[in-house]
Order: sequence, then structure tokens, then C-alpha cells
Amino acid sequence: MTMKTPEEYLASLRARDLKLWIDGVLVDDPVDHPRVRPAINAVAETYALAHEPDTAELATAWSDLVSARVNRFTHLFRSPEDLVAKVRLQRILGKRTGTCFQRCVGMDGLNAAFIATWEADEAAHQRFLSWLTAVQRADQVICGAMTDAKGDRSKRPTEQPDQFLRIVERRDDGIVLRGAKLHQTGAANSHQILVMPGQGLKAGEEDFAFIAAMPVDAPGITMVLGRQPADDRRGGPDAGNARYGGQEVVVLFEDVFVPAERVFVDGDIAACGVLLEAFGGYHRASYGGCKPGNLDVLIGASAQLAELHGVRQASHVRDKLVEMVHLTETIHGVGLAASHKSTQHAAGLWQVDPILANVCKHNVTRLPFEILRLAEDLAGGLMATMPSIADLDHPHIGAGLRTVVGSRARAHLLRLVEWMTYGSGAVPFRIECMHGAGSPQAQRIILERQTDWTSRMAQARALAGLTD
Amino acid sequence: MTMKTPEEYLASLRARDLKLWIDGVLVDDPVDHPRVRPAINAVAETYALAHEPDTAELATAWSDLVSARVNRFTHLFRSPEDLVAKVRLQRILGKRTGTCFQRCVGMDGLNAAFIATWEADEAAHQRFLSWLTAVQRADQVICGAMTDAKGDRSKRPTEQPDQFLRIVERRDDGIVLRGAKLHQTGAANSHQILVMPGQGLKAGEEDFAFIAAMPVDAPGITMVLGRQPADDRRGGPDAGNARYGGQEVVVLFEDVFVPAERVFVDGDIAACGVLLEAFGGYHRASYGGCKPGNLDVLIGASAQLAELHGVRQASHVRDKLVEMVHLTETIHGVGLAASHKSTQHAAGLWQVDPILANVCKHNVTRLPFEILRLAEDLAGGLMATMPSIADLDHPHIGAGLRTVVGSRARAHLLRLVEWMTYGSGAVPFRIECMHGAGSPQAQRIILERQTDWTSRMAQARALAGLTD
Amino acid sequence: MTMKTPEEYLASLRARDLKLWIDGVLVDDPVDHPRVRPAINAVAETYALAHEPDTAELATAWSDLVSARVNRFTHLFRSPEDLVAKVRLQRILGKRTGTCFQRCVGMDGLNAAFIATWEADEAAHQRFLSWLTAVQRADQVICGAMTDAKGDRSKRPTEQPDQFLRIVERRDDGIVLRGAKLHQTGAANSHQILVMPGQGLKAGEEDFAFIAAMPVDAPGITMVLGRQPADDRRGGPDAGNARYGGQEVVVLFEDVFVPAERVFVDGDIAACGVLLEAFGGYHRASYGGCKPGNLDVLIGASAQLAELHGVRQASHVRDKLVEMVHLTETIHGVGLAASHKSTQHAAGLWQVDPILANVCKHNVTRLPFEILRLAEDLAGGLMATMPSIADLDHPHIGAGLRTVVGSRARAHLLRLVEWMTYGSGAVPFRIECMHGAGSPQAQRIILERQTDWTSRMAQARALAGLTD
Amino acid sequence: MTMKTPEEYLASLRARDLKLWIDGVLVDDPVDHPRVRPAINAVAETYALAHEPDTAELATAWSDLVSARVNRFTHLFRSPEDLVAKVRLQRILGKRTGTCFQRCVGMDGLNAAFIATWEADEAAHQRFLSWLTAVQRADQVICGAMTDAKGDRSKRPTEQPDQFLRIVERRDDGIVLRGAKLHQTGAANSHQILVMPGQGLKAGEEDFAFIAAMPVDAPGITMVLGRQPADDRRGGPDAGNARYGGQEVVVLFEDVFVPAERVFVDGDIAACGVLLEAFGGYHRASYGGCKPGNLDVLIGASAQLAELHGVRQASHVRDKLVEMVHLTETIHGVGLAASHKSTQHAAGLWQVDPILANVCKHNVTRLPFEILRLAEDLAGGLMATMPSIADLDHPHIGAGLRTVVGSRARAHLLRLVEWMTYGSGAVPFRIECMHGAGSPQAQRIILERQTDWTSRMAQARALAGLTD
Repeated sequence: MTMKTPEEYLASLRARDLKLWIDGVLVDDPVDHPRVRPAINAVAETYALAHEPDTAELATAWSDLVSARVNRFTHLFRSPEDLVAKVRLQRILGKRTGTCFQRCVGMDGLNAAFIATWEADEAAHQRFLSWLTAVQRADQVICGAMTDAKGDRSKRPTEQPDQFLRIVERRDDGIVLRGAKLHQTGAANSHQILVMPGQGLKAGEEDFAFIAAMPVDAPGITMVLGRQPADDRRGGPDAGNARYGGQEVVVLFEDVFVPAERVFVDGDIAACGVLLEAFGGYHRASYGGCKPGNLDVLIGASAQLAELHGVRQASHVRDKLVEMVHLTETIHGVGLAASHKSTQHAAGLWQVDPILANVCKHNVTRLPFEILRLAEDLAGGLMATMPSIADLDHPHIGAGLRTVVGSRARAHLLRLVEWMTYGSGAVPFRIECMHGAGSPQAQRIILERQTDWTSRMAQARALAGLTD
Repeated sequence: MTMKTPEEYLASLRARDLKLWIDGVLVDDPVDHPRVRPAINAVAETYALAHEPDTAELATAWSDLVSARVNRFTHLFRSPEDLVAKVRLQRILGKRTGTCFQRCVGMDGLNAAFIATWEADEAAHQRFLSWLTAVQRADQVICGAMTDAKGDRSKRPTEQPDQFLRIVERRDDGIVLRGAKLHQTGAANSHQILVMPGQGLKAGEEDFAFIAAMPVDAPGITMVLGRQPADDRRGGPDAGNARYGGQEVVVLFEDVFVPAERVFVDGDIAACGVLLEAFGGYHRASYGGCKPGNLDVLIGASAQLAELHGVRQASHVRDKLVEMVHLTETIHGVGLAASHKSTQHAAGLWQVDPILANVCKHNVTRLPFEILRLAEDLAGGLMATMPSIADLDHPHIGAGLRTVVGSRARAHLLRLVEWMTYGSGAVPFRIECMHGAGSPQAQRIILERQTDWTSRMAQARALAGLTD
Repeated sequence: MTMKTPEEYLASLRARDLKLWIDGVLVDDPVDHPRVRPAINAVAETYALAHEPDTAELATAWSDLVSARVNRFTHLFRSPEDLVAKVRLQRILGKRTGTCFQRCVGMDGLNAAFIATWEADEAAHQRFLSWLTAVQRADQVICGAMTDAKGDRSKRPTEQPDQFLRIVERRDDGIVLRGAKLHQTGAANSHQILVMPGQGLKAGEEDFAFIAAMPVDAPGITMVLGRQPADDRRGGPDAGNARYGGQEVVVLFEDVFVPAERVFVDGDIAACGVLLEAFGGYHRASYGGCKPGNLDVLIGASAQLAELHGVRQASHVRDKLVEMVHLTETIHGVGLAASHKSTQHAAGLWQVDPILANVCKHNVTRLPFEILRLAEDLAGGLMATMPSIADLDHPHIGAGLRTVVGSRARAHLLRLVEWMTYGSGAVPFRIECMHGAGSPQAQRIILERQTDWTSRMAQARALAGLTD
Repeated sequence: MTMKTPEEYLASLRARDLKLWIDGVLVDDPVDHPRVRPAINAVAETYALAHEPDTAELATAWSDLVSARVNRFTHLFRSPEDLVAKVRLQRILGKRTGTCFQRCVGMDGLNAAFIATWEADEAAHQRFLSWLTAVQRADQVICGAMTDAKGDRSKRPTEQPDQFLRIVERRDDGIVLRGAKLHQTGAANSHQILVMPGQGLKAGEEDFAFIAAMPVDAPGITMVLGRQPADDRRGGPDAGNARYGGQEVVVLFEDVFVPAERVFVDGDIAACGVLLEAFGGYHRASYGGCKPGNLDVLIGASAQLAELHGVRQASHVRDKLVEMVHLTETIHGVGLAASHKSTQHAAGLWQVDPILANVCKHNVTRLPFEILRLAEDLAGGLMATMPSIADLDHPHIGAGLRTVVGSRARAHLLRLVEWMTYGSGAVPFRIECMHGAGSPQAQRIILERQTDWTSRMAQARALAGLTD
């Protein structure tokens, strides 16, 4: 079971007692809900690749914890090669699904928690390892729950506690959590929630400083599915992406009890800071894998549409396609480099280069937007003005529409580009590009902090002939 | 009646016998249909401004044809001031509605047709003037029908006639048209269709070379509403723009008869070329008005959200807002300049500077995309992950959501930004920016053709000290 | 004499008793100095155009002050047309010379001083008008002296007075000035210096708050010529621009006495603020004229080189040339628009639109740099690796070099592009683009201040369906 | 001697009988010539690093050919680590010198020649290895001579043979070469020339298809030093970079005899193609090392100037500095990634990833230009208007200038930024960024060719739900 099949994954989801609300209704079986299933299909590919001959080696890794190969998404970064393999695997999955496959926050989060608990104390680390061993054995999807509502950004958590997930009671046998976590990608498709602080904390803010885990169906946990443009088209003829999709969930915690053995860190401000920094690096490099994979799809769709339009060889079309590739590989290259140029933490795990990881993600907040612009250029206006594809079969208007649309292939490819640029797929694609793993300014802060200004200034003075 | 009120406009729409299909259903009364009404509301503002004290002078103009003031959208460009007034009015309306108000193609089209018919022959011009006089008297909305399906862009119309609207029969009393026009913005909210060729034609392609007009409910005309992301949210709590929206329609012509007095040009290749060039200039400058107006809304929403988030004074936030303004005014400035720097055509109308008009539109295919990127940055992730606003009032989950969302104002402003960036409003905003009035390459072709390379090269040689 | 000929201008320069130091040597006759003459040649074109049939009307204007036509560079902005004519004239001169013609700061400065003295008091205004009348009669070049050394930008003038030009003595018959003005474009080619404050001042800083004028050879004034890359090539075969060039001068004021009738404003903080704002608007719009003219030369040289290289029709070359035009006209369009959209000040003069003027200049700090990059791309590597053109005639190495260089035309055009991009001409071109009329941040400050955020936020709220 | 000291390197240069012309004069001893020495100083650092404790390991490598450690610049890429080490070493040297250290074309060229001769035939490879062994033993600088004059780019070499270096005679004991090679970076500081074809060739063009080597002072070889802006300032107070500089040379070949054992390939079109492709990859990745190093200096100078100006903590200044870092590391990251993601050629050497290598160089043709723009922004106008630094000590004007300039440090740092942006250092920096290792379009051609369009299109179709 350390490498579930997609079918076993789906069965394990059905076994949960999840409280998921969609448009005001408590959903009975999320697995078959049309708004949810595309997201599950995307996660399922992370299981599928572990069993396919071409990808099995990349998608799995040997784990000393369980003395078996495990799915890479539950694996620890034991070498630079592990970090590079992660990015390569993410690109394959990003291309395979055209969207977010929702399992990276958990993977990057558990690695960060490994380091943070190691820094905290031996007991914390052992509690964490015990949990991780179970996760690896069951090949679970971990929802890494980090972002709080934050309210007024100029205020501290203690000034507006209800804007943060917090400990409202400390008992002998555990803690009680109240509040919410936002932007929980893939939460409804997960088995466990790993709660982590969403920002740097300081003394006096211990109630917000904890790392803990619980099942997604723990009493008191309620999920509400996010609303996305065209999300009602899922499963229909205008779906865009015929099979896959993303998922965003608000997770409400109404006095959720977490037993002590699943509370890895409680009130340790420093350890929480370690986790944030480690996670930020890991996850910002991850975007150098998945988003180039998504972009491969957009490039492919644009090239295919250009062929269908009879303009594939026009010089400006070729130039735009090459530009899309250039920008995509710029992102991917830096993501790879951040992974290759890693260093080993005393806890044994390897960590990405912080500058390159932040540069990678920062490019992700920019370059895909230009690629999208080019894709919208190449797609042409019909992408936005086409009636429903269902209308193509209509007895009265179908014939006329079929003439002007030209081919089913064109219609569906236009819907795919629409889906990624300004439809339901835009959330896991473009908004994740912008805000996933931290908004642009977060990366700039790290870049400023990590840059060795002193040596650069000294060398400039030296070359200017100045003697200090 | 030369300046209808909004109410009279709505009444006139109800009086039509329009054949409009929406998602496979022939709609009874489009005016009250939730998918259509926001677009009508937007057009209605072009009528409202003619009656409001602050804008009445700008929104109307004296017409010698009817010896009365008329709505500017039916007016001829009799002076540079008319062209500048158009751009100024468009900005006001773009800001007022946050979307496309759908009446500019008709306005720019009738001015281009004025010149083209004047170039054709006296009789053609008189037929046109007779029609225009009626249009002005009734203050009608003209759907300027230009773009054909085009199919394989490497083929001529004669090689794939069904991809173009064409004359299939010439009778003594008129012509019969077959085919379709695509991307018909606001067609279902119009009174008349002005059909025009969609591209340059040459000898032998006379069946595609005509300019004519007909009511939108002429026998044989069928309209099919385009499908847009989140278009089903219109009228609901997640609408984004609470009142206004765009509209894209496919217009099918199944043997539509046009009586001779409404056929202004038939088979005159040269006159059609004149129309295309004149229209291109007018309409590309128009984008210097409406889109800056739309962008004002996006800027305002971003600034307002920053205030609600408590970050309005953060230096990077202020910098991004200023950048949005800078890019917006760049577009507007060039649009104004194209209008000021106009020249008079022999037919009496004034024409925009062709280089500046194309530069204006070309910037519209770029700069708003960066502004959108900044807006998505400033909005934050909740824009994409928020559940339906209806859920905020839900008895079970409402309280928890209200806490994390913070305020109704924030929720609705996030929906507004979502609507403009990747929701239903993205079609009239970003896709129009890209493809309206011609895709980017179309502008580059004109720029290359209009630039005086010779004088620039000569001056470079002179300054390099070369004597020719 | 209200419209001197170029020859009369040169004679008038020789009549001065200027103290100009070049590389440590006090120059006898600057007019014939090879480092100075190209700059004089550029200014002389402002005189030439007033006499050439094609440009005389544009380059001159009727002045009520002297009841005669005067050179436009001494003229007041009496109408929007005057402001537009200025920009048009600047483009012609920018193209004619390929560089800065150095007379705009004076022109924009005297207009700003007109308004500032009018705001100050009647006597101030009369002193100014008296001086201006003399300037117009003699058709003089005015050096607008604004920028101070400023030292530590975080300190006020009173904390570091030696970093500012200041009044060190107030006498009954006038004032005594000490300090310096930097970046004095064309100072050595001028007749008069109009000293103005270089930044906003506040109460207690009256010694820095004055507007006054004096001849360039007033006792105590010393000029030092700036050093520029390749400035020693001027007049030689590798000059680049065979005839014209820019000029930057440090002007030292060592206790310069200014008689009372030439002290227009003394200690009036408010009037100085008025001057700064008025000047900023005028001069930022000016860049919408001259720099597009310079860019015309760069575009022409690039196109000509592409022809010589046999690649003029390559699609990527055409695309790059079109891009250069697009960006150039974007700048020019906004400059024109800022002028057209002007408003009348109570003093009678017209003022440019402050937002568009700042947008114009802000684009000048960006777009030419991309154009330069494209020019460097199209020029090819030989621009940077070519030996001296003199070597082409060398008995030993000339033949071999002539073969590889191909033609004199190519060699000289490469030198012209080099001169503009990273040679002597880069100072008046690219560095002026960046810092002339204020560095980029200065424009952003004005844009933030001038933008009506309130109305944009209100409209966003309205469209989001919020009722205030 | 496999790792010369800088002193030994200089001595070896003096031992040559070089024919170098500078401004029409045959130079006696280039080593001490002020126009040449800075370039030699830069190359000398490649020798120095091999002996410094901190860098010795990185700057040298074990060579099986000579059974000793050799300077890395003569080393073969025997592993991915060698390729990564190259890029890391290049960054150190780029930062150390602030300019081009001129030894990379030779290094990348000899690796490409290794592969090409291996592909040609065993004898060719043995001749090459014999030469390379001698090069490693003597630790020589190799001038990789590739670019021909090319004349009219639309013509083939056979149509304009004098525009290409070519074999004019084949003798039993060797070949005779005539023509020239352009853009020979560091040629006058080299020991050997490795001549290679400058472009793809086809059957019938065998006279242009050869790879051979000869000493730089072989009979018939004449060098002419390129002219650069401000190159006469070298060694003086306004030098900018006080110690280092670049060098560009035209190398004329007037019937140069090359003995058979140094003719590695003659007439083998295919092998020449292999060399071009291999070299292109290697050298385009090299730019991911050296140019980020150069940019470190520019960033350092900008930060240092901001401190001197008292604005280092201004938010817009910090933001610009972070942007400079972000763009620099983007380049470096992709250069590293291209090296890490290498594959082994059958000849035993490792080759960079062709897509990432081209993406790396393509970013180098863009991003440094934006960084330069920001550096010019931060430097302020005085960079362009400052008199000679010598003037600061002038008895008459020195005191006044010292006051306005503020400090020697500022003056020299401004000159350093000037030198890199539009002075003599701009040639090895910005023009190399643009044209070194191929102009931008060359990279786009490779990117288009190397991209797997088919799989991307197939995946797009699959996600759109289309079954092929």
C-alpha cells in the first residue's frame, strides 16, 4: 500500500466522512461530484505515475522509514537528486493534467516539518516521524494548511485572533484549534491536514505557533468549496479540460481537537520560523516544475490551433510560439538550478538554493502572463465569442455553427485555451502562478535579504580603483 | 426621438421580432433574459448620457442631416473635435459600465461607410445618407457586422465561400445574402445590421464586396449567443459587475434579402478597401477611449481592495497602482493624439492619424495585460478561492465564511476584479483588447506600411556624414 | 534681430567673454573648439529653421511683447496650438540633429517663470517681462539652470548649503549668488542663464528660493565642460554624428552679483513651487518631441544597415523595425496629447495636462532603452569591434579592412549607431531620456498625486453593487 | 607549466612576434600598451585563480592527456560537474574583472573541436589531441576564431569568397588560408588561433570547411585593434574600471600556411556542422556564468552609489536593486541548469542541454539591458555630465568641482558604471551580451528546432478530449 493505485486512492477517499459544502449544500459523495471529480482525477495521476513503467522510477523513491519504495509525494528530500527528481516529476504531471495536481504543498510541507521538528527537539521530531511513517505506509495525500485569513495586514495575530487558526485550549491529551485556513488547494481530495503557521511570529504569539496533523474528517472540520468561473461547465461539452481540474477550499476549524501525539510543535516560535523558510524554498522551486508542464499544454494548444487556422508557418506565429517556449524554459531552468544547487541541512535533508528558488517563483508571477497573452493572441477571437459546443449538434442552429466553427477539434482546443486563460482552469494556473507559495512581494523580500550586497559593493569599489 | 431615453431604447428593443438562441433555446424576450440584460444595460448608458446634464453636450451633436442634435453614436466626424469628443465620451462610458457598451463599431462603421460610399458614386452615397438619416432620427443602435469565419487563413474567399458572408443572388429589387458574421458585439441589442466586408478583396471577389443594411429581425437572420465563463452568474450574487456586461453573438444569414435601396455598395472592390482602411483607423483610436475607462474601474477596485486589506500605503502597493495609471494613460494619450492629429477627407469627414491610431490599439493588445497582472497581484488569492457570496448567508457555514472574508465590500470587489480578469467580463475586456478592431499583427502591418522609412534612412545617412 | 540667422548666432557667441574650462584648460574661443562646436551646430539649427521656407512658420511665432515674429524658442505658450507646435518643432529638430539642441530648458523655463512671477506679484512679473522682451529682441539662447548638486538626498538645503546655489548676500542693488548648477545642457552655447530652484522648498529656506537671470559671462561664473565617452573623436572620422553633438557643463558661481532688476523672485517659496510644477509639466511633454526625433535617426540607421547587410526583408528584422516605430510613436503620441489637452492658467499661458506630460516623460525613461537594444541587435557585432575608420585608408592594413567592412556607408552608419547607444551621443540621448526633466521616480510621484483615486474607487464600488 | 602564473603568462606574451596595429601604428610591445594591458590583466586572472587557495580547485582540473592538473580553460568537459564548474568559475571571474576575460571561446572551441574531430575520423582526432596536449602543457590562451565578415547575408560563401576565411591552396604539407576573422575577442592576448567555420556549410563549400590551429604570430597574420568609446581613457583617471578591460581584434590572414599536422579537419562539411552545434551549446551556457559576474559589479556599484547619495533605503531604490538581482540570477540559474542537465556524447565529453543553453543566452540578449537601464537610473545624471576626474585636482576649478562631486569614491564609481553602460566596458559587456555566441535570432532558430512540438500538440488534443 505504500504505492496505492489510482483506484485504491479513490476508494480511500470514499472511506472518509468528509463535511464538504458546495454552493450551500452538504455533499454526500464528493468523489463523484462533477465539481470535485476533475480535481480528484488530477491527484490520481500522482498515483498512476508510480505504477507506469516509464515513470515508476521517477515517481517513487526508497524510504528508510518504511523500508520500501514510496510514492515520491510522501518522500523526504534525501539528496539533490531527490529535489531535481521532484521538479522533473512535477513537469510531467503538469503536462499530463494541464492543471494543479494538488499534492505538492503536502510534500514540501512534510519536508519542511521534518527540518522544523528536528530543530525543535527530539521528541517533536519523533512524533513527526511516527506520523510520517504512517503517511508513507498509507500513501496519503496531505493537505498542507498554511494561509490564514489575515484580515487587516497591518495588524498582528493577537490584535485580530479570529483571522488566524489558533489554539483555544491546551489540554493534557492535546490541543483544541479554532479558526480557518484559506486557499486550501485539493483539501477535499486529501486524507490528512498538516496545519502550519502562515507567517512569521514573535514572542507572545505562541497560540498561533504550532505544527500538527489530523484527518480531514476530524470532528469540527468543515470544508467549503471555492467558486470559480465556469466551474459549472465541468463534465460538460464546454469543460475545456475534459478530465482534470483544480480545487480550492476554505477549511473551517470549529474547536477541532488534536491529540498530543499529532501535535508536533506547540508554541515554538523559532521552529515555526524554520518551517516557513524551509517550506518557502521548497515550494517556490516546485513552481519550476508544474507550471512549465501546464505551459507545455498551452503551447501545444496554440501550435495546434495555428495549424488548424492555416497560419502555423506565418513568421509572426512561429515567433510567438518560440517566445512561449523561451519563457517556459526560463522558469523550468531556474527551478532545476535551485534544486541542483542545494545544500544539506544538519537534519539530513537537502534544501534548495534560496535565491534561485525565489527567482524561480518570481518569474512564475510574470512570465506565464506574457505567455497567456500570446496564447490569447494566437487563439483568435472565436475563443471568446463561440456559443456552447452543445449548440453544434442543435437541429436548428447546428449546421450554421458547424460551418463557422470549422471543426470539433478547433472548438475543443479553443475551450481548452479559454479554460486555462480565463475559465475554471485559470484558478489553478494563473492565480496559483501569482499567489501560490507566496505573492510576488514575498519573493522580493527574501531576495533582498539573501543577496550578499556587501561583497558586490566591495568588488565595485575595488574595480573603481578605490582602496578601502 | 433623435435622442431616445434609455426606457425608449428598451421599448424599441422589445418591438423587434428577434430570433436569438441561447444555449439551444429560442428566447422569447431577450430584453429580460439574465444573460442578455447586462449587455442591454450597458448600451442603455449611451442613451442615458445624452440626457444627463453633465454629459449631454459631449454625448450629442448637431446633425445637418436631420437638423437636430443627435446622439453622438449616430453622428458623423465633422471635425477633429468630434473625434476627440468620441474618445472622451468612450472613456466616460467605459468607466461608467466597466465593460463594452457595444455601440462603437456601428458609429465607426457608419462613418467609414460614409467615406466609402462617397468614393463609390453619388447614388451609393445618397442611398447611404437616406439610411443614415433614418438611423439618426430613430437613434438606433447599429451592429457593424464585419468579421467572417475565414476558415483556413491561407485561402481566398472564392476557395471557401461558405466561410464568408456573400451574395448568392442578385435580383432587380435587391440582393440575397448567405453566410455568417462572427464576433458580433452587442448584436442582440441592436436595431440594424450594417454588413461590411471583413478583409481586403480583389478582382473576381465581387460577391463578397458589398456594404448594405437591414433590420436585425429581417427574415433569415438568426442569432446565437456566445458562451462565456461564468455567464450563468449574471444577475446573481457572484455576478461581479452588478449591472453591466458584454455580449458576443454569431449572426447566421440564411438567404437574407436586402432591398436595393439598402444596398449601398455592390461589387465595388475599391470602395470596400476604402471602408476597411477608414474603419480600421477610427476603431483603433476608439480603443484609446473605452479601455482606459474600463481600466479606471480595475484601478479603482484594486485601490479599494488595498485599503480594505490595510496595505494601501505599502510602497510596493502604491508603486503598482501608479504603474497601472501610467499604462492606462499611455493608451488614452495616444488615442487622443490620433484624434487631434486628424486630417480631412475629401468627402468632408475627418480621419484619425493612421500611425497613432494603430499605435493606440497595439498598446491595447499589451498594456492592459500587465495591468491585469498587477490587479491579480493586488487582489490576493481569495479572489480565486472564495466560495459563492451566497454562502456568506448560509445558516451553517455563513458565520465562518463571513469571518474569513471580512466584509461584503471585499467579497463583491473581489468578484468584480475576477469578472474583469478571468470571468464573464474578460471577454469584452481582455479579449476585445487583443482582437477587437484587428489582432496585433494587423496593426503591425499598417505601421510598417505607413512609416516613412525613406526619410528616416536618408537622415541617418546625412548625419553619418554620407553624401548620397 | 528677433530671428537671428545661424551666422549671427555664432557671431553673438564669439562676442561673449566666457570662462570655459575643458580638460583643465581655459579655452580661448569655444566656438571653434572641436569638443564644443558640434553642440553649437545643433543649437544653430534652431536658428536655421526660423529662416527655412518649410519650417519658418512653425519655428517662429508672433509676440505681442515685441510686436514682431520671434523664434519659437523665446516664445510664450499663448494657446494649445503653441504647445503642440513646440512638440512638432522639437521632433523636426531631433531628427535634424540626432541629438539634443539644447534650447528647450530655456524655453520651458521662461514660460514657467512667466507664470511664477505672475503669481508672485506685479513688480516681479514686470521685471521678468522686461528681461524677456530683451531676450526675444536679441533672440538669445537661455540656459535654464535648475539642478543643484544636492549631496546627501536625505538632507535639506540648510543642512548642506554648499550643495545648492544660494544667496549669500542681499544688497540694495541686488543679490550675490554662490554655489553651482549641474547638468547644464548647452550652457556654453548660451547667452543668458536663468537660475531657478532645483527642488521644492519650505519656510526657512528663502536663501535658496529665487529666480533670476544674468549673462553667461557675468563676473564670477566659471564653466567646466563634462567629459563623455569618445568625446575626443568629435570632428574626426569616427565621430559618429558628423556634425552635431550634445553638451553638458558644470556652472560654478563664485559670488556672482545679480542686479535687482534681474532678480525676479527672491525668497518667495510659493512662487518657486509654482515654477517647479509648471516647468516640470512643460519640459516632460517636450521629451515627446525631441526624443522621437532622435529615435527617427536610430530607426533610419538601423533600416539602412539592414539593407546594407542584405537582411532588410527578413521577417525578424522587419518586426524589430516596426517595434521601434511603435514605441517611438507611443512616446510622441502622449507628448502631443499632453499639449492638446492643455488648460489656461490665470496668467494667460496654457499648461499641458500634468498626467499626460508625466506619462510622456516616464515612457521616455523606458521605451528608448528597448529601442536601443533593438538597434544594437540590428547593427551587429562589427559596430563594437571595428577599428578606426581612418584605418580603412591605411597603406598596410586598409585593403584588408575595406574588404571586411564592406563599405564606407556601413562603417559610418555603424559609428552613428554606436555614438547614440554608447558613445558621446548617448549622453544627450539615453541619459537625458532617463534623467532629463526629472528622474523616473519624480514622474511617479506626480502621477500618484494627480490621479483621482477617489472617483475610481467610488465607481468600482458602484459596479460591484455596493451602496455607499 | 600546466598552470602558469600570471607573470609567466605575461612573459609568454612578450615572447611572441605579434603584428598588432593600433590606430594605424604597428605596436612594438602590446603587453605594456595602455589600450591592450587592461585586457591582458583580465586574462591574467584566469591564471591567478589557478594558484589562489580559494579557487585553485575550481580553476584547475585533472587531465588524463598530460597526467597533471591543468588550468580549467584548457580542460575537456569530462562530466556534468566540469560544465557546472565552468559556469561557476566564469561567474567568479566576471565579478573579479567586471569584464570579459577572453578565454572562453577558446575553451568552448577546443571542446567542440574534440567532438567534431572525433566524428570526423581517428586521424583527425589524433592530430587534434596532439595539439591539445601541447596547449595544456603550455597553459596557452586559445583565440577561437569563428566569425567571418559575411558581407551580404543573403549570399553563400562561394558567391563572395573574400568575405570568408578560406583555403586558397592545398599543398602536400599543409594548407594556405586567406581572408579574415572578425570580433576576435582577446586575440592579441593569445598564443594560438583555433580557426573554425563561422556558419553552416553545404556540399561545394569545402574550401570554407576546415578546423586548424596556428600560433598568433604565424607569418601572414596581422591584427588590427578595434576602436571603442573612451578607449583612450584606459590607464587614466577616468578609466572607469581601473585595471581590467576587454579587447576586440580584426585578424587578417594573408596567405597563412598551416602545416598538415595542425589541420584537424579539411573539407568535412558534416564535422564542421558538429562543431558549430557543439560550440553553440557550450558557449551560450557560458554566458550564464560571466555576465552574471559582470552584473554583480554593476549591482554593487549601484548599491554603493545609492548609499553615497543617501537613498539606499528609499523603497524604489531597494526595489530596483532587488530587480537587478532577480534578473541576474535568472540568467545564472538557466546557465547552471543547462550544465547540470547535460548528456554524454559518444566521444566521451558531456554536452549542455541545447534548449536551456539557448534560453540562457537569449535571456542574456535582453535582461542585462533592463539591468543597465536601472543602473543608469540609480547612478543619476552626474554620471554623464561630470568633468574629468583629473579636474578635481585642478588649482582653479578643483575646489568647486570637489564640492559638487562630493567624494572621489562617488566620482570613480560613476565612471565605473559609465564604463559598463556606455563606455569602453560596454563592448565586452553589452555588445557581447547581444552578439556573443550568436545574435538573438540564432537562439530562436535553435529553440524552434529543438522544441518537441508534436508531443505538446498531442497532449493539448488529449486534454481537450479529442481522440486522435
